[in-house]
Amino acid sequence: MTGFVSRKSFREVRDFIQQSVTHGPAESVPVRRANNRVLAEDVVSPVNVPYFDRSAMDGYACRAEETSGATDYSPLYFKLIGETLPGQPFEGEVEKNEVVKIMTGGEIPTGANAVMMAEYTQEDGERVRFTQQVAPGKNVMRTGEDISVGDVVLQQGRRLRPQDLGVLASVHQGQVKVVQSPTVAIIPTGSELVEPDSEAAGTRIVDSNSYLLQGLVELYGGTPIFKGIQQDDYETIKATIQNADEDIVVLSGGTSVGEEDFAPQVIHELGQLDLHGVSMKPGSPFGMGRTGEQIVCLLPGSPVAAFVTGDAFLGSIIRRRLGQDVGFAYRKVRGKLDQKIVSSIGRTEFVRIRIQPDFTISKLRVSGAGILTSTTRADGFLIVDEELEGYPEGAVVDVYAYD
Amino acid sequence: MTGFVSRKSFREVRDFIQQSVTHGPAESVPVRRANNRVLAEDVVSPVNVPYFDRSAMDGYACRAEETSGATDYSPLYFKLIGETLPGQPFEGEVEKNEVVKIMTGGEIPTGANAVMMAEYTQEDGERVRFTQQVAPGKNVMRTGEDISVGDVVLQQGRRLRPQDLGVLASVHQGQVKVVQSPTVAIIPTGSELVEPDSEAAGTRIVDSNSYLLQGLVELYGGTPIFKGIQQDDYETIKATIQNADEDIVVLSGGTSVGEEDFAPQVIHELGQLDLHGVSMKPGSPFGMGRTGEQIVCLLPGSPVAAFVTGDAFLGSIIRRRLGQDVGFAYRKVRGKLDQKIVSSIGRTEFVRIRIQPDFTISKLRVSGAGILTSTTRADGFLIVDEELEGYPEGAVVDVYAYD
Repeated sequence: MTGFVSRKSFREVRDFIQQSVTHGPAESVPVRRANNRVLAEDVVSPVNVPYFDRSAMDGYACRAEETSGATDYSPLYFKLIGETLPGQPFEGEVEKNEVVKIMTGGEIPTGANAVMMAEYTQEDGERVRFTQQVAPGKNVMRTGEDISVGDVVLQQGRRLRPQDLGVLASVHQGQVKVVQSPTVAIIPTGSELVEPDSEAAGTRIVDSNSYLLQGLVELYGGTPIFKGIQQDDYETIKATIQNADEDIVVLSGGTSVGEEDFAPQVIHELGQLDLHGVSMKPGSPFGMGRTGEQIVCLLPGSPVAAFVTGDAFLGSIIRRRLGQDVGFAYRKVRGKLDQKIVSSIGRTEFVRIRIQPDFTISKLRVSGAGILTSTTRADGFLIVDEELEGYPEGAVVDVYAYD
Repeated sequence: MTGFVSRKSFREVRDFIQQSVTHGPAESVPVRRANNRVLAEDVVSPVNVPYFDRSAMDGYACRAEETSGATDYSPLYFKLIGETLPGQPFEGEVEKNEVVKIMTGGEIPTGANAVMMAEYTQEDGERVRFTQQVAPGKNVMRTGEDISVGDVVLQQGRRLRPQDLGVLASVHQGQVKVVQSPTVAIIPTGSELVEPDSEAAGTRIVDSNSYLLQGLVELYGGTPIFKGIQQDDYETIKATIQNADEDIVVLSGGTSVGEEDFAPQVIHELGQLDLHGVSMKPGSPFGMGRTGEQIVCLLPGSPVAAFVTGDAFLGSIIRRRLGQDVGFAYRKVRGKLDQKIVSSIGRTEFVRIRIQPDFTISKLRVSGAGILTSTTRADGFLIVDEELEGYPEGAVVDVYAYD
């Protein structure tokens, strides 16, 4: 039972992941199935959007100059010479004192340069009355106003949102190149572990880590593959890793420096253990290495520590495989601490917090790092940097929010 | 071309959805596949977690009182009488001056009441040296300390996060009751619409709405089913709605009060149109009704308006079907406006904004509501209430953030 040979700082581990993990291969998928996928390359528009001058309103396409001075009390009258519907343009030309009825999305006919909104008009046979004037260009969406040919509409590394799918469709992309989702083997180790639907018996413990890790892998865009609970046994762990052909292999439990902690030794034998031990709380028994092309992550057995390191490091490994920078899957929120937070210099601390609707930040009262419900009662977490002793009450801090 | 008979406010529409949409049926799914699903009922723990007193550290289980006064300079010595591993408890009792070697997760043997961390000890055959004292209860996780029998660990309506899956497993739930994902038929209408992989031809327009709506439905937890582009034609629209057996039917385009806007009339014939027209910008031509048990949503054809109303109303309809309250899928962030925002009293405005890393909020410069890329360049949006004329520069505002 000795300590880690050399601990890395939180930032050193993140830097190592940023430097050493490269992105995976791309694949082409239909845009309709690309929500939440990560772009493998910039998307450059081959078209103008809109690709013709079109109406932004229902009304009448007109020559704006001729509407000058029209009011309720002195309306102006125009001759209706036709109609343009979306997809069915008016073929002629609008000449002096003429207008063309137009629907939203319809092409502005030649000669017209503005659209008078329907509510300021009255149609009577071939005659249309205008009771307002309109400026040139009004209610006209010009060619390329939204997107021009050659514009980069979305950048490599972007996780696609619903509106992005709309923009991809609007620039005529039915398919899109995204990065393949990395496969992640999840291997909980521990002779005491049982599945949750087993009867709770004696001193056996339910494997909760593989569940939260599967969820984290999905959250970050990977594809989790559960390998079953494995015994704390050198040969078993070795064979399980050798048989795993996933891009990333994650072991939880048996990853520290105790006598029963075989995983680090197995990685030493099969490949290389690049780092082992991090100055952070919780989560210090984190390790990372490689066996051939495969990245191996060693996560602590304690569920809270497994969750924090899974979020902080496994998440970043998946992000890098997807072509993104290291980071969390969460948005930062700024708030004010309602109490003092004490931390130790020399180690990065992850403090589980509540975020009130008025953005007051409260530390969650937890009595131990083993309390998994602290992660479900929390709204997010505050990272206290290793150079800090903590924060005073009232400090303005940026926290990560789970939602 | 007349206006809406009676416009509702944004809040009236939200209230109507909250009152009128009830949650759908539940189903039981394996916890391993329950990430992001919404709980149909409270989860009550049938067990204590941990369900025996266990060690939070690698070290030695001891009688805390006997360690009093131990230091580097005056260590105390104990007799090692056995070992307890996770899942393999020590069967005897710890008596005077005795200790038992223990691993993290191991059961605290009878007689012991604390665990001395391994790093303050040295083992030499049957003798163990302690160089620190330890308080009673130290490094012991007591039975039920995390969760007690009968505790509600997660509540109905909760969207399950990775850590929730871990907690569900830890309270022995292999399966969990979630609300069935509502099916949502997506029907873009418009004779001018084409699929994005068609050649851009003349004045036809690519259907981008069905793409962004599919993404939104997924974001809110529904299951989108694309019904194909439909012609702007009364009978076509009627037949398409009649043939749709999804829980929710969404039409986009042809939903306003223009001559080519058949959808509202069709809903009148097939069922009831509960509301039509909302005092908001963008998105006023929103409508909502029912045909039998089916909820029908009418969204504007303009992509930005379809996106905003899809987010604000279709999203809330899906949330209610899942047993959640109306609301957005996004987290609120507080920031400070770097410019004045002008809005009109009497209508709710959705202003697309950027959020700087220092939480400065900037209005996105957009020249028209038809600019779909404004939704992809934005980091979120600010809702300006109908009672407000806007916000002054420097105002502190809460905005919704897309990430």
